[in-house]
Amino acid sequence: MTETPLDSLIRRLARLPGLGPRSASRAALYLIKHKEQLMIPLAQALEHAAHNMRACTECGNLDSTDICHICTDHRRDASRLCVIEDVSDLWAIERAGIFTGRYHILGGTLSAIDGRGPEELGIDRLVRRATALTEYNRQPDLTHQTQTATGEVILATSATVDGQTTAHYIAERLADLPLTLTRLAHGVPVGGELNYLDDGTLAQAMRARQPL
Amino acid sequence: MTETPLDSLIRRLARLPGLGPRSASRAALYLIKHKEQLMIPLAQALEHAAHNMRACTECGNLDSTDICHICTDHRRDASRLCVIEDVSDLWAIERAGIFTGRYHILGGTLSAIDGRGPEELGIDRLVRRATALTEYNRQPDLTHQTQTATGEVILATSATVDGQTTAHYIAERLADLPLTLTRLAHGVPVGGELNYLDDGTLAQAMRARQPL
Repeated sequence: MTETPLDSLIRRLARLPGLGPRSASRAALYLIKHKEQLMIPLAQALEHAAHNMRACTECGNLDSTDICHICTDHRRDASRLCVIEDVSDLWAIERAGIFTGRYHILGGTLSAIDGRGPEELGIDRLVRRATALTEYNRQPDLTHQTQTATGEVILATSATVDGQTTAHYIAERLADLPLTLTRLAHGVPVGGELNYLDDGTLAQAMRARQPL
Repeated sequence: MTETPLDSLIRRLARLPGLGPRSASRAALYLIKHKEQLMIPLAQALEHAAHNMRACTECGNLDSTDICHICTDHRRDASRLCVIEDVSDLWAIERAGIFTGRYHILGGTLSAIDGRGPEELGIDRLVRRATALTEYNRQPDLTHQTQTATGEVILATSATVDGQTTAHYIAERLADLPLTLTRLAHGVPVGGELNYLDDGTLAQAMRARQPL
């Protein structure tokens, strides 16, 4: 039997992360039932995003403009650079609303198995951006008594082996620059129960305990 | 801030069953990363299916041809009609490979809350098809001694309150026709543990117990 247009749609939907063959069938039926309200608009949204979204040549963020809206936003703190693996990490940090600096998206981690070395991640480009930070004329920070560095690079790669290897490699590459290098704190997730926490996290949380 | 093409895509993906805002974001990023292999083909598959799939005017099945490939397949037993709620039920029964008759898809159940009455489900059309079954010149069935009816209608709506209400209503409408009316057996699912089974199913399975 030849493949119907519906079969072909289901096969493609099933390749999306989070959808298997069954849920792809369900989604396809739902789409067919909402042809005008969802199916046609979704097809157009896919086409439109495919042709209009690009990676920012500065930071790697996806936007309809190159340079992206974060890199061009002059209200953001240009002295702080947050190094992350993926665009989804940027979204997570922006949702938290806790960081006003700029980003640098690696697009993954160093991985011998997947053949991703420093060239593939464009570490040289990151080093150039970090070097530019040190030349940035920072406003005096009145909340601190002394000012030891002119910029900060936050290594916010994942707390996985690959993520931490990547962070260590980048830290070495940036070691000679007059920059503050930081990483995210490890500890008990807010709302998390100790009972369900892995030993590694608990050990880190205990070592980094803070006075009340 | 104006909505980027990516935001618009995520908003639409999030409306698919099985995808929420987070998984829609993940799917959108995956699509952007596989633009040529998946994103553009998916957009085309959506367009193509939207314009080429239609409901079979005979049974309600979705196919690229009207009448559908099941209704036009003369190897299938035209004396048996399986009444189901949705195209996905047809797929499930076809996967099981246990039924060689034809289908009648209601497109839902009777529901006072959702305002679906017999007209919305097209019960009259089902009655006409069932009547046609009785006029079907059936080959003598050599495996049975006597032949009491010329056709069979299997009421395979869901085992939910709405599904069973719908089945009862249809059974009443078809009661005067010389047809065998059947429903699917209730019982312990194959591979199911009694321990995890609801009381209703267990009671039905016990009542309908069979000699070994």
